[in-house]
Amino acid sequence: MRVRLGVNVLGVGCHPAAWRTGEVEPTAQFDVAYFQQVARIGERGTLDAVFLADQPGLFEPPDRRPPMTALEPTVVLAAVASATERIGVVATASTSYNEPFNLARRIASLDHLSGGRAGWNAVTTYAPTASANFGFEAPASHDERYGRADEFLSVTKQLWDSWADDALVGDVDAGVYADTGRIEPIDHVGEHFSVRGPLNVPRSRQGRPVLVQAGGSPQGRALAAKHAEAIFTSQLTLEAGQAFYADIKSRVLREGRDPDGVLILPGLTTVIGGTEAEAHARYERLEELAGGSGSLWHLAAQLGLDAESLDLDAPLPPIDRSRLKSSVGFQDAFLSLAAQGLTVRQIVTRFASGHRLVVGAPEQVADTIEAWVRERAADGFNLMPDVFPTGLEAFVDHVVPELRRRGIFRTEYEGTTLREHLGLPRPVRHEAVFV
Amino acid sequence: MRVRLGVNVLGVGCHPAAWRTGEVEPTAQFDVAYFQQVARIGERGTLDAVFLADQPGLFEPPDRRPPMTALEPTVVLAAVASATERIGVVATASTSYNEPFNLARRIASLDHLSGGRAGWNAVTTYAPTASANFGFEAPASHDERYGRADEFLSVTKQLWDSWADDALVGDVDAGVYADTGRIEPIDHVGEHFSVRGPLNVPRSRQGRPVLVQAGGSPQGRALAAKHAEAIFTSQLTLEAGQAFYADIKSRVLREGRDPDGVLILPGLTTVIGGTEAEAHARYERLEELAGGSGSLWHLAAQLGLDAESLDLDAPLPPIDRSRLKSSVGFQDAFLSLAAQGLTVRQIVTRFASGHRLVVGAPEQVADTIEAWVRERAADGFNLMPDVFPTGLEAFVDHVVPELRRRGIFRTEYEGTTLREHLGLPRPVRHEAVFV
Repeated sequence: MRVRLGVNVLGVGCHPAAWRTGEVEPTAQFDVAYFQQVARIGERGTLDAVFLADQPGLFEPPDRRPPMTALEPTVVLAAVASATERIGVVATASTSYNEPFNLARRIASLDHLSGGRAGWNAVTTYAPTASANFGFEAPASHDERYGRADEFLSVTKQLWDSWADDALVGDVDAGVYADTGRIEPIDHVGEHFSVRGPLNVPRSRQGRPVLVQAGGSPQGRALAAKHAEAIFTSQLTLEAGQAFYADIKSRVLREGRDPDGVLILPGLTTVIGGTEAEAHARYERLEELAGGSGSLWHLAAQLGLDAESLDLDAPLPPIDRSRLKSSVGFQDAFLSLAAQGLTVRQIVTRFASGHRLVVGAPEQVADTIEAWVRERAADGFNLMPDVFPTGLEAFVDHVVPELRRRGIFRTEYEGTTLREHLGLPRPVRHEAVFV
Repeated sequence: MRVRLGVNVLGVGCHPAAWRTGEVEPTAQFDVAYFQQVARIGERGTLDAVFLADQPGLFEPPDRRPPMTALEPTVVLAAVASATERIGVVATASTSYNEPFNLARRIASLDHLSGGRAGWNAVTTYAPTASANFGFEAPASHDERYGRADEFLSVTKQLWDSWADDALVGDVDAGVYADTGRIEPIDHVGEHFSVRGPLNVPRSRQGRPVLVQAGGSPQGRALAAKHAEAIFTSQLTLEAGQAFYADIKSRVLREGRDPDGVLILPGLTTVIGGTEAEAHARYERLEELAGGSGSLWHLAAQLGLDAESLDLDAPLPPIDRSRLKSSVGFQDAFLSLAAQGLTVRQIVTRFASGHRLVVGAPEQVADTIEAWVRERAADGFNLMPDVFPTGLEAFVDHVVPELRRRGIFRTEYEGTTLREHLGLPRPVRHEAVFV
């Protein structure tokens, strides 16, 4: 059993009050040295990858807290890659507001300049604050977005495979730079895109970037089963996680793919203390800094409700799914909690930044991770520490050694590429185009 | 008098045979360490900026020479910025095949992560090999492309100014992250774009990235006069350079802008030897490695002719402008040579990679640079060394000291931003939006 671990560097920490803790420069997310420092800590902990979320727009007014995403992920991760040696770099980018040629090329470029450590987390981006920046009155429908995403991913994989592994020759004596017989246009003509190709970037050390996907709706699951190699998902209970895990792995099988080639990585927000009591004290201080209850505020926002209308010690009021302001995956996640009849307070303490929250001592965090992987609810996690860099340092210095003692996490990197870290095969290039 | 100098890192050198010289790894342009090394050499020479050209597609089959552009410039320059301290980073990107929000944001991100050293070279991209990657049967017309470019640049500047300089607050005690009253949507609705904004990136240390432009047609000149702060141009004779310089500066005046705020930087391909004879021997070896005449081949390609049909010792045959395979700026440049009745051989030795070629000792290269700036044909140059890193090292170690002795080039960086290097003012944000 091997646990996979990425770290999701959301702003300066995944708790809304992170920027007010004094543990990090409040506006550090506009300073690339911050991202490089966090990545080096992750690399010290032999984590698989640094992950950056993305939204092409201001998700909400940044008056009381940092924007969820700001600097564009591919350029930030190019700088991160050049300050690190081994850790993978996974950039989120939207299939709804990009062109396949540009994005395929940019991620492939990141893959080259990181020596084969890049991945792309493909999202369809619901937010109306994004669509208004691209000439749309409102976001396209869910079906429309996923139809475009499916074609986008298919075009991207073809472009990444448009050069054979041995097409780049560089034979000075013979004067042959590239074997252009091994570089083929893709001549794609589809409903959303017409792309001739080939890409102007060869294959990389790991063949091509790792494809990550982050949608939890039926269409998102279908897309993941067809294309993804890792899935970033929100799962708040072990049971919901197990159901999701089983559903995806069986969908992958039905697609004729290897279930071990598609990793399930839920988000996990961590608040770590030397003891459980210390961790809870830390969490309470964060909630206080957020002005009462930061996580309550976040939950209410996702539910489309006013935080002050919620009674902490009562169950959630009946939820009108049509009013929910979040992706289907997030909706399923917190409805799975509400269905258990938990109080608002109990839901909030399991829910942070839309992901499962664990508040505890290092052993307890390790227990959660181990249990979810053993019980087939996850292949690992995308970590979301409360505050950077401190929360990640706590994880790397105290949880990673515990996972190593248990023999379920590496003690050093075995390979150099993101695929090697994740135990994913180097994809064989589809040669059919030559036949 | 102050000379401005950038370096255009085209492949592994601006001579088509650069990759075969043994002076550089033949396929180095797929290795970011190569770009970082070149940039550090430029920084040692206190050059203003590293410049990367771009084409979103394979311009020609890379069987006999490297593709002109490959890895995507913004990600490469993000890695370059993190390996350097002072030198500017200017990325080319097309207005025809990008969305303003995405590109404005990516360049602004590069500006933040380089500490205010970024610029964007806006091009409209003629090549059909590019348009076919974005769903077009053929490139849009020249007028159509420039209409879109004008609106694109206007939207970009508005987005870059959508945050006031003091909008990012980060006041931990007051719990105020940003002053959202100082962050305004742009609400742009135009012929080509509708963009609400604001950008999710604040203003940078230099206010906003430097806008560079590279088109030489009447529409390109009009666009430059209206928006650009530097112009990368091809000028092959002093007289043509002077005419271009005077035309642009007067257009800038007519736009109500300061002519000193728009720098004219022609490309200058350099082949440097210890003596003039050594430089010519080096040039002849390069031509030989290119298989006869690399520059002849390049000239013929731009003319849409077969290289073998040209007699080196005769004047150029009459040119049918409609058959020319290059931008209007390049056409004007070599037609200015042909009009002087020079032989093909003479034209070829002044023309390389579409730009003026100087083959000589360091003093001779310095003479050309000084003469063009004194005679108001240029404010400086975008250097295009024959081979990297050797050709740039020769420039930095032998031409830069000569320019310093003459008192026309800096001995150390006076500032930290690209605007400071170029002597450009920090743009005042347009506040009208608040009135």
